[in-house]
Amino acid sequence: MSSSWGEQLKISLFGESHGLAVGAVIEGLPVGEAIDEDELHRFLLRRAPGRSALTSARREDDCPRILSGMTDGRTNGAPLALVIENRDARGEDYETLRTVPRPGHADYPAAVKYGGCQDANGGGHFSGRLTAPLCAVGGICLQILNRRGIEITAHLASVGGVDDRAFDPCGLNEAECSSLRAEELPVLDADKGGQMRQAIRRAAEEGDSLGGTVECMVERLPVGLGGALFGGLDARLASLLFAIPAVKGVEFGEGFHATRLRGSENNDPFVLREGCVVTETNRAGGVLGGMSTGMPLLFRVAFKPTPSIARAQKSVDLSTMQERELRVQGRHDPCVAIRAVPAVEAAAALAVLDALLGG
Amino acid sequence: MSSSWGEQLKISLFGESHGLAVGAVIEGLPVGEAIDEDELHRFLLRRAPGRSALTSARREDDCPRILSGMTDGRTNGAPLALVIENRDARGEDYETLRTVPRPGHADYPAAVKYGGCQDANGGGHFSGRLTAPLCAVGGICLQILNRRGIEITAHLASVGGVDDRAFDPCGLNEAECSSLRAEELPVLDADKGGQMRQAIRRAAEEGDSLGGTVECMVERLPVGLGGALFGGLDARLASLLFAIPAVKGVEFGEGFHATRLRGSENNDPFVLREGCVVTETNRAGGVLGGMSTGMPLLFRVAFKPTPSIARAQKSVDLSTMQERELRVQGRHDPCVAIRAVPAVEAAAALAVLDALLGG
Amino acid sequence: MSSSWGEQLKISLFGESHGLAVGAVIEGLPVGEAIDEDELHRFLLRRAPGRSALTSARREDDCPRILSGMTDGRTNGAPLALVIENRDARGEDYETLRTVPRPGHADYPAAVKYGGCQDANGGGHFSGRLTAPLCAVGGICLQILNRRGIEITAHLASVGGVDDRAFDPCGLNEAECSSLRAEELPVLDADKGGQMRQAIRRAAEEGDSLGGTVECMVERLPVGLGGALFGGLDARLASLLFAIPAVKGVEFGEGFHATRLRGSENNDPFVLREGCVVTETNRAGGVLGGMSTGMPLLFRVAFKPTPSIARAQKSVDLSTMQERELRVQGRHDPCVAIRAVPAVEAAAALAVLDALLGG
Amino acid sequence: MSSSWGEQLKISLFGESHGLAVGAVIEGLPVGEAIDEDELHRFLLRRAPGRSALTSARREDDCPRILSGMTDGRTNGAPLALVIENRDARGEDYETLRTVPRPGHADYPAAVKYGGCQDANGGGHFSGRLTAPLCAVGGICLQILNRRGIEITAHLASVGGVDDRAFDPCGLNEAECSSLRAEELPVLDADKGGQMRQAIRRAAEEGDSLGGTVECMVERLPVGLGGALFGGLDARLASLLFAIPAVKGVEFGEGFHATRLRGSENNDPFVLREGCVVTETNRAGGVLGGMSTGMPLLFRVAFKPTPSIARAQKSVDLSTMQERELRVQGRHDPCVAIRAVPAVEAAAALAVLDALLGG
Repeated sequence: MSSSWGEQLKISLFGESHGLAVGAVIEGLPVGEAIDEDELHRFLLRRAPGRSALTSARREDDCPRILSGMTDGRTNGAPLALVIENRDARGEDYETLRTVPRPGHADYPAAVKYGGCQDANGGGHFSGRLTAPLCAVGGICLQILNRRGIEITAHLASVGGVDDRAFDPCGLNEAECSSLRAEELPVLDADKGGQMRQAIRRAAEEGDSLGGTVECMVERLPVGLGGALFGGLDARLASLLFAIPAVKGVEFGEGFHATRLRGSENNDPFVLREGCVVTETNRAGGVLGGMSTGMPLLFRVAFKPTPSIARAQKSVDLSTMQERELRVQGRHDPCVAIRAVPAVEAAAALAVLDALLGG
Repeated sequence: MSSSWGEQLKISLFGESHGLAVGAVIEGLPVGEAIDEDELHRFLLRRAPGRSALTSARREDDCPRILSGMTDGRTNGAPLALVIENRDARGEDYETLRTVPRPGHADYPAAVKYGGCQDANGGGHFSGRLTAPLCAVGGICLQILNRRGIEITAHLASVGGVDDRAFDPCGLNEAECSSLRAEELPVLDADKGGQMRQAIRRAAEEGDSLGGTVECMVERLPVGLGGALFGGLDARLASLLFAIPAVKGVEFGEGFHATRLRGSENNDPFVLREGCVVTETNRAGGVLGGMSTGMPLLFRVAFKPTPSIARAQKSVDLSTMQERELRVQGRHDPCVAIRAVPAVEAAAALAVLDALLGG
Repeated sequence: MSSSWGEQLKISLFGESHGLAVGAVIEGLPVGEAIDEDELHRFLLRRAPGRSALTSARREDDCPRILSGMTDGRTNGAPLALVIENRDARGEDYETLRTVPRPGHADYPAAVKYGGCQDANGGGHFSGRLTAPLCAVGGICLQILNRRGIEITAHLASVGGVDDRAFDPCGLNEAECSSLRAEELPVLDADKGGQMRQAIRRAAEEGDSLGGTVECMVERLPVGLGGALFGGLDARLASLLFAIPAVKGVEFGEGFHATRLRGSENNDPFVLREGCVVTETNRAGGVLGGMSTGMPLLFRVAFKPTPSIARAQKSVDLSTMQERELRVQGRHDPCVAIRAVPAVEAAAALAVLDALLGG
Repeated sequence: MSSSWGEQLKISLFGESHGLAVGAVIEGLPVGEAIDEDELHRFLLRRAPGRSALTSARREDDCPRILSGMTDGRTNGAPLALVIENRDARGEDYETLRTVPRPGHADYPAAVKYGGCQDANGGGHFSGRLTAPLCAVGGICLQILNRRGIEITAHLASVGGVDDRAFDPCGLNEAECSSLRAEELPVLDADKGGQMRQAIRRAAEEGDSLGGTVECMVERLPVGLGGALFGGLDARLASLLFAIPAVKGVEFGEGFHATRLRGSENNDPFVLREGCVVTETNRAGGVLGGMSTGMPLLFRVAFKPTPSIARAQKSVDLSTMQERELRVQGRHDPCVAIRAVPAVEAAAALAVLDALLGG
């Protein structure tokens, strides 16, 4: 199934970019967990558009309304359903695009697959707006994980070729983590952040967009989460990350760089630290054989540049089968990677809680 | 579930590296499909060890015995079960390792997760040997796909820092494809192949190992396979690829490189060619919004260097909780990426047939 | 998962009896299907309370609001989410019952399972109110099936020991079918209907309740829907029927009576009728080996008497662990089987459409 | 999927009646559980044919060979695969039947569904022989449940209209249970057993067959196993029971009889016994709202008479589309309900262990 995921948890996402609402149902949450709705809303606002000059001007408060699954502020064992209304939808922006697929978007394959019956406004169900309910269910999982001592932190590792300082693979310091969540651009190195900001503004002015990388770390995982083969923590997490629109690559630990190392350089030696088994280095990114090693889980996600750009592009009118020029109107992010940071954290929270509940 | 996968197809892999057998059950295959068992065996021999000086000396003929699901050489609608016996298993090689986890392997998290009950010989169910039944079910799917005109081709894109010529993202020529399947080292550029061979031998002599990259292309896919979110062709394929032991990264099309491009550079313009909608370039790797675009599906998979190396490594004896030195015995591949080439093709075949049957 | 079901379709039900809303998400519907929301509402009103002196006085208009998955009145390929608000919820009716489980209800095992965190008002997520979203998704499937010529009809086969005339296992006449859907008590024999009505009134006056049986027929199914073992049309349908609160038995064709027959009496002989293979009789109830035979699918569902009765009953206060007497307040149906008729049809529609889409 | 089942456990059955083997893969078993293979074989022999004059003369020792998932006699966390070879297969018995479907069997819908590609010998994958691997996986679950104090007992509640004494719904005595497992005909009342035996012999002599009912009880379940809606212990168990060939009905507790009772007669009052909450009666059959109540789980399963009978029957030759007479050859059970007793226990063991692992 396309829009559902999970083994112990089961999430089901619904909605379209310019329909009435987006939302989610999540089943299998542990019972009796307090969910702080204000904290959840704050988490969602990190993703919401219209908060910054660097992101889309569409203005959504993205406040989820929980319809079921909670009693007196705690999960009650029944499926939790939540709805986020679309308040600033403008389907009309897309009227002229109906039959002219935007390059880099789902429009063309969706038109062929659904024979024209799909909701084509702003990508419909294929829109990045679906990361709002993903963030909502992930944000709920995150609260449950935090209560168990597990922390998830992500930053913008690169934007348009400007690289932030990488995470220390063996763990973060707390000051870094909390400052990241407060920033307009979540980066470790403020100078690099400034350069990114400039690059984004320049691209936007030129009617263009930038790609970026998000690096994410999950700390204080127990050893042995996940399992062999398709049940691997990395395999399960990848299946969530590639579900985020615009993701083109995922790597764990050294990732693609490991292909250039020798075994003696890439293996992490086991040693004892304060009576515990740890690895001296963490090139594996905290996962071996699909299972968490006890070291931080570390991965990077590649986001392509926003395909919606103001510049003229070539396309084909599917109704007339004529080539034509297209300029994408509407309100778009010059760099989707920025608002994707909490979506990556949300995906990590889902994968980790699902694995944790599976034992 | 850890060892099962699929929506329209459902595969279930079983077995341990040094147990009686490995095998698979696959349900949901189209009915009435001829399966050529000799061709299947030839496909498996591309993965089998002991065929080349560049791979492990373990000698397995890897001939699958089909127990059910076929009548008169054709699929009969019932689940197809197949068993591949382990003939050259040598559990005793691993006797001394029982309590000393090998760096870079699943041993340590498996020991914690299963409390010592796991089959620890050669990684047990976490072993790369499980790619044998994966190749068997993938090889069956491949025959069914080929009959529908879909071709899957992979090559060693890099080994130990030596890069082969990349695939042309817009399609391969037939001569290249067939020669790739016959080669000991499946590369496009014979000179680079020679350099890789040298690098592998040198690493092996030094008791070390190399990483590598596999690039894979699926040609002649219909438009619209896959779907939104978790049902994306890329998300589903990634969940299979990360299940292959030693995989640390997966990227589609421009992948991580797309993070350094602008939208105007990365978008593939739509144009008409002989009355058909195609893209002029294929930086997307043939997938947009989780759906096939009709252009070749193109992706790369990062394999870390074989963690089993003859050199001394640091580890900890879990029974005594003492640090100790470890030298991994046994018969190992100096570069797992070589034998992984058909496993990547098999994973692609599974993901594509599953999506194709889902419409 | 508890509240999700399906292979080709995937439904996910949510909500609690006295919460904000009940609802459903359904994924995998065929694309481009017109859904008539008025017709859907009429179908739901057959289940809705407050329509008749014979059912609960709780007044809900049960009008589903479709949030996603439809464009211009047709399914658009994205998940269809619908919400039915609870307008006449009265959680306070249940205040005194919190710690005293009602006999015959889910209260006691739910209290143990969820440690008191469950929504206990009127059964919460275990309430018969969850058949409202079940009917909504089933009613949507029904429209799609009707368009393909498949008809589903159910009647009250018995109430409190009064038996209606049984369906002819080989098929219904159209007049019967349409009249059944219009009746307050859907029965074939009006006299028996009168007796049932009397029996229900008498039981209600005496603060008691009655059980009943629903018989259901699906006509014009293609041959071969379903499959072996757990994929059997009967197995899949049973898994839905037993999910309806108060169901205690399910039988197909001769059902339990077949245990008293000989093979020569129970087998349905194959004959030719107008060049088609049919069976002379339909003791199998239209299903053999888990597959539809082309004869009408026929099954019966046993509903226990409503457990909520006004009479004094014995129970235990779980907070004090003292035995005490209980009188169940609130607005209840004297016979749940009546309003269950469309729920049984809805379950049949779901099972049949799921099987039909699976081929 | 047709031949796989489960949430926490995942079983996958394969094989055909007269193919090389039948077998199963089961994933998700608790780790470190000792499995006594001799005890498992004894359990399978209760189902095996050729043990008694009352059952089929086909002689199979039905000894499962475990290929994976066990180390040193204990489950090791990896999928457990087992194979049961078909030694006394006689496909040729079915040669003349290829195109003439046997009344009461899956032959006709299977021929239509699979277009003639199905394995038609003795029903192929639709055969009752598939209960051998079902019993094997169920027998493994049973050992694990027994170790946790949970007992499962079934008897022949009726054969051909002769009724055995019913189980006491509130619990069995141990002597009864152990004697049932040793008997050729597992009945509580030896006189009734004698009458059944006579009836079976008479039917067999007359080339005919008998139906029967199996009653099953699961004792010492914890309270709260299962869940709402489709996750109900009854719904999940029913989905397994209807997968057993020849099952036409399933009921829990009073079942269909409850439709004739009033609420005041059918509700089970809660009382305290030795400080524990129990119900005075157990008309619910130990399940309320899909969850175990702590009282014994009690259900009955209706088996139709064996459809294979020696008498002449009407059928149609599908190759010529002519009506013709058919006499079914081969070795058949005069009453499938007898050998079905352990299959019912196996299904119960699977459903209960799956629910138990789900919490």
